[in-house]
Amino acid sequence: MQQEDLLKQIEFIKEIDKLKYIQRKTRLFASDRNENDAEHSWHLAMMAIILSQHANVPVDVLKVLKMVLIHDIVEIDAGDTFIYDTAKNHVNTDQERLAAERIFGMLPKSQCDELIAIWEEFEAGETDEAKFAKSMDRLEPLLQNVSNDGGTWKEFGVDYAKVYEKKQVIRNGSASIWNYAEQLIEDSVEKGILKKK
Amino acid sequence: MQQEDLLKQIEFIKEIDKLKYIQRKTRLFASDRNENDAEHSWHLAMMAIILSQHANVPVDVLKVLKMVLIHDIVEIDAGDTFIYDTAKNHVNTDQERLAAERIFGMLPKSQCDELIAIWEEFEAGETDEAKFAKSMDRLEPLLQNVSNDGGTWKEFGVDYAKVYEKKQVIRNGSASIWNYAEQLIEDSVEKGILKKK
Repeated sequence: MQQEDLLKQIEFIKEIDKLKYIQRKTRLFASDRNENDAEHSWHLAMMAIILSQHANVPVDVLKVLKMVLIHDIVEIDAGDTFIYDTAKNHVNTDQERLAAERIFGMLPKSQCDELIAIWEEFEAGETDEAKFAKSMDRLEPLLQNVSNDGGTWKEFGVDYAKVYEKKQVIRNGSASIWNYAEQLIEDSVEKGILKKK
Repeated sequence: MQQEDLLKQIEFIKEIDKLKYIQRKTRLFASDRNENDAEHSWHLAMMAIILSQHANVPVDVLKVLKMVLIHDIVEIDAGDTFIYDTAKNHVNTDQERLAAERIFGMLPKSQCDELIAIWEEFEAGETDEAKFAKSMDRLEPLLQNVSNDGGTWKEFGVDYAKVYEKKQVIRNGSASIWNYAEQLIEDSVEKGILKKK
């Protein structure tokens, strides 16, 4: 049984290597190089470890780590959805659900069920852990865009109102991080790297 | 105090972005593209989550995750050391210790102390968590080299004895994963992608 599990798990480990090829729209800090999903997931995991003291309520850090480490794995099949893409709704598309079933379905049943449940919890964004994990996911590209003189905001003509709307989700995970992030957004307008209208 | 901590933590989060530029010798699965340290660290974290049931003794998965997520951060200053490089000893070089002090030193004191202690625990490889984390770190490139028809073994003329010596560390973390890995090494000789001498 252990041996049978292991063979399935090894196949899964090989499969998820593909996450390293999924390019995000955002760029590395102070760089022109696009970030890929595996790098992004690692960075969110580090942020969750480092910033958990700022969560609005104490969170289960292990669960938050599982969330951020797996949250983009469905994009191996479904591709990256740009957060400011108005044509696509990023909440659990059918394509993403099929991807979760195929990819996590390579694992032993109980493990597959656990990871799909964690992915769904993240997507729903209702538990304390999901709220904190999502605040990490929104904070990283904000820091990147500021470091890149506007980055994807400039490139895709995203204005203050849209940024503010998407980023205020950070508050649900951490009011103190939101205070910092809100100030960054205001400063970005001031510096001319984010258009008010 | 919280606010002061946050500003330090944000600077650390920006600094560690550099891990995405540190190239490893090994290549992605079935690929010519080198893996970078951030991708590698994400993959080890996923492996630790997926494979923890195979640890020789129950391990604290959160601690293992912290270990594998941070284990290569010192390479931002010290660079990647190829495991089969006989000119360099990979155990806590002075350069790596200085790197740990500089980079983790950007964090609030208690957090810096915690992460340096976890990094040292990983490097020493004596606790159950460190043994399991190290078994993940040895397994990933083995799987990659097998998928790449010999990969870095062929490229750098590494033979069976050297591979076997480095890889048997996996047994300290998981006897069952070592059984699998040992068979992979034997099969690699059989298939002609790893030289016996």
